[in-house]
Formats: sequence, structure tokens, C-alpha cells
Amino acid sequence: MGRLTTSRRVTRITLEGVNRQRPDAIAVEEPLEIRVAGSPLSVTMRTPGHDVELAAGFLVSEGVLSRGDQFARAIHCGGPGTGGADGNTYNVLDLTLAPGVASPTPRSFFTTSSCGVCGTASIDAVEKVSSYDVSSDGIQVSAHDVAAFPDRLREQQKTFDKTGGLHGAALFDVVTGELLVAREDVGRHNAVDKVVGWALLNDRLPLRGTVLQVSGRVSFELVQKAVMAGIPILSAVSAPSSLAIELAERAGLTLAAFVRGSSMNLYTRADRIRVPSTTPAATEVASVR
Amino acid sequence: MGRLTTSRRVTRITLEGVNRQRPDAIAVEEPLEIRVAGSPLSVTMRTPGHDVELAAGFLVSEGVLSRGDQFARAIHCGGPGTGGADGNTYNVLDLTLAPGVASPTPRSFFTTSSCGVCGTASIDAVEKVSSYDVSSDGIQVSAHDVAAFPDRLREQQKTFDKTGGLHGAALFDVVTGELLVAREDVGRHNAVDKVVGWALLNDRLPLRGTVLQVSGRVSFELVQKAVMAGIPILSAVSAPSSLAIELAERAGLTLAAFVRGSSMNLYTRADRIRVPSTTPAATEVASVR
Repeated sequence: MGRLTTSRRVTRITLEGVNRQRPDAIAVEEPLEIRVAGSPLSVTMRTPGHDVELAAGFLVSEGVLSRGDQFARAIHCGGPGTGGADGNTYNVLDLTLAPGVASPTPRSFFTTSSCGVCGTASIDAVEKVSSYDVSSDGIQVSAHDVAAFPDRLREQQKTFDKTGGLHGAALFDVVTGELLVAREDVGRHNAVDKVVGWALLNDRLPLRGTVLQVSGRVSFELVQKAVMAGIPILSAVSAPSSLAIELAERAGLTLAAFVRGSSMNLYTRADRIRVPSTTPAATEVASVR
Repeated sequence: MGRLTTSRRVTRITLEGVNRQRPDAIAVEEPLEIRVAGSPLSVTMRTPGHDVELAAGFLVSEGVLSRGDQFARAIHCGGPGTGGADGNTYNVLDLTLAPGVASPTPRSFFTTSSCGVCGTASIDAVEKVSSYDVSSDGIQVSAHDVAAFPDRLREQQKTFDKTGGLHGAALFDVVTGELLVAREDVGRHNAVDKVVGWALLNDRLPLRGTVLQVSGRVSFELVQKAVMAGIPILSAVSAPSSLAIELAERAGLTLAAFVRGSSMNLYTRADRIRVPSTTPAATEVASVR
């Protein structure tokens, strides 16, 4: 199950004339088929490991699950003679939901029956309804703590260090400052799903009073995943997209991005970030509002 | 249509006490619904602009189109009173294929009717069949040229420079060294689809004798898109995944990654890269094979 990396022989060349073969650690990417009660629901390309969390988190993101007791069990489904030594590739996972929880229909692309919605505002078409209201979460976190989260996530990214090929996501408790969980994946959406799935399986939803730290950029979909899990603060090392900011604003989520070194940009709900007392240098005074 | 960036007011803070509001350029992300003959096929989150290329390239990647004459026309479908000044959000694109070209069925997630494929080798489940054989492309490119491609792509990434939020993809002609096309998008898959769509619409498929340069990592899906378009060489600034390498090997595509500064790693079909004459320093001799 711990197939996070594999080794390949690569040819390393430089313009200065180096030309040699050497083994290289590669981030593993394999498809995971998620089934619910035997019915195929979705296939995602992912880094193997924490598959149950990934599937559980995916179902939270899709609005199927919002409490741990809605999830019954998961088994890797194997066929004889086609996989590894035990006949199982561990690439098909079948979930059983608790009695009374409605099985999802296979996730389909957004479809419309007529041209009537052609011109609807874009965000409506893809927004999901969360069971949780993040806007009411009154938690505050210091800018000092937020500035330290990227390095604390990076310390957990053991596979990235080896391969340079993985995204990371981590969850921090604002009150205790504790790192609750960190996960890596070739897909940044998957890394977040694994974190959210961990929370679901540990009966931690909604994730009030937490910060989700991600290693890369922030798309609409990452904000949506945070909102679906009840996370009030999302912090990213790189840039946000326009729709990510729009959804964060609508949902009342705090969005921090370009969190690098001792600085960061706050795009929405800046009131949750306790900033250092302002002692601007003379050159800064003019632009402080 | 040229909505590549938008401006938002952000709060910039530093631990040293700076706290000011300023406008920030943001990469635009909006959903595009792709329809074929009026039927919804897929929704992708993308950077607006070059939508027709994006849709055409998506259909090449999906195996629906392989020649320019199979594509008839595309129109942005608008509803009254719901979009911009002209009632059109430009987020729905309806494609018409040439007479006789089979319309695709809505792209569904990989589904299986029984547990029979549970244990099949992972790559089989997601691999598509290309109209083109890239393994037979006998083209060669110098390592010097490849080493220069990332900077030449970056020079074209005007929006990335402003927002830090976009992936890029560019196509180079190996014989002339010419940059044929470069595209940006919040989604790296979309950037590649736009490049491939440009080629389809300009009757350039298959893209024999070209190099596809991408700004980030290489997943399985990016290799697949290159193979579907007949591109023999894929070069990336960052890491490849295991499945990307496997598919490149099976398809006979040359995969170069970690192409940075004067060095690069060659994972498959290194014979297409003309390397500088080896004049190893004394310290290198032991490890040269």
C-alpha cells in the first residue's frame, strides 16, 4: 500500500557534457476507481495510500457525506491473477455507506436540458451546497502562526523531498497550534480530499477552528472542498484564481495566499487574521489605509 | 473575451508590521461548458480565451477528432439578460462537427459493469487509442534547443508574470526551431488542450517533428494528450509521475523533465535528444556509463 515512490533509471545530461544514467525516485501515480455499494462512481489519478481517506473526502466534497457515522466501511476489491502477489492492485475501492444514507449517482459532468442557463452567472453552475456555515466561525489566528504553516507542511512532505512531484495539504488546529494531519498526492485536489477524509473518519467534521494549508495554487475547487468540510481559513503558498476568491467571499471563508516568508496576501475575511501591530516605516505611511 | 486577469483589492501584511490594501492582478478562472450539437459534453474550469481551441483540443484528447476537416464551427451560446452587456457570459460553447463525424457521448467516468477488471493493470483502464504513432517519428533535437524551451515559453507567459497563477504550454518546431504557439491557463491540462486545438484548427495534426514544452509537472494525462496529437517529444520543467513515464515508454514518446538551466533528465526514448559531446570532468568518469 505504501507505494508513494518508485525508482526509474534516467539519463541525466547537461550542456557541459555530463551524460550518465542513474536511478531516480519517481512519485507514483495510479488510477483509483471509487465505488459505492458496488457501483462505479469515479476514477481519479492519485498517489496510492490513504485511499479510504481519499474516497471519504471525495464524498464529503461531493456533498454525499458530512458526518463520520454515515460511513460504514471500505474494501479494496481485487480480481484473481491480475494484480500483485495477492492478486490485488489496490486500485479499486468499494465503499459501504451507513443504512439510510443515500448512495450518490455516478458523478456526471454538469449537464443542462436546455439553453436556458447558458448565460447564468458562472459560479452558480458549479457551486455545491455545504452542510456547514463557515462564515459564522469566529476563530482568529495570528499572522505569525499562518506564516509558519507552509514550512510545517513542507517538513511533512517526505515524498516531495525525494521526487519533487507531489502536492501537500495539512490541517492545523488554531487554538492549540497542532498539526492535525498532513497528506501528499500527485493531485492537489486529492491531497485535500485525503485531509478531509481523515477528518470525516475521525468524527472531526465540521472542521471549525482549523486552517487548511496547501502547497500550491488555490482554484475554485479547493475553496469548495474547504467549505464543504466546514474549514474557515484556507492558506496557500501560491496564487488564487478569481473564482476561488469569489466563492471564498460568498461563503465567508478567509483566503490567504502567497504565504511566503514573513508576508502574505489576505483576499477575504481578513478579520480572522490577527496582524502584527502596525509600525510602518516612513516610506510605507503614504500607502497604509 | 480577453478576460485573462481581473483586479481585486487585497490586504498585504508582513510580520514586520506592514498592513495595507492594494489592488492585485488575479488570474481569471471560469467554467466552460462544452457542447456538441447542442448536447452538454463536459464542463472545465479554465482561463477564458482561446475557448474554441480548448474545446477542439479536448476533443482530440478524447479521441473524437484527429483532423481539422472534422471540425465545422463553434459558437458561444448566450441567454438573454443574464450575462454581460450583450447577454452572453461566453461560458458555453457549442461545437458542430463535420457531417459524418460521430458525436461523442457525454464523457463519463470510467465505469465497469462487473468486478472482472478490478485487478487489471492500472494503465489499461485509462489509456486511450491514438490515431497517430509517435514511436515512428525519427526526429532529433539538440539538448541545447531543449534547454532553451522553458525560457522561451516563459517569455510568452505574460499573464503568469502578472498573477503567478497560470500554467503554460508551447509547441516548438524541431527543424526550424520556431515557437509555433504558446497558451496559458489556470489548468495545465487546458493549456495543452489549447495548443493541440490550435494545431487541429490549423490542420497541423499529427504534430510530427515537434516538442511540447510545459511549465510544470507531467502527469499521465499530459502524456496522453501529447500522444493523441502525435507529438513525439514532451519536455517539462518539473517532475514526471510514474504513470506518465510508463505511458511515454509504451507509446514511444520522448519524455524530458526537470529541464532547468543547463541540465535535464531523459526518461524515455533518449535517442531523440542529441547530447553534447561528453567531456566529463575527472570526478564524473566513475559514474559515466
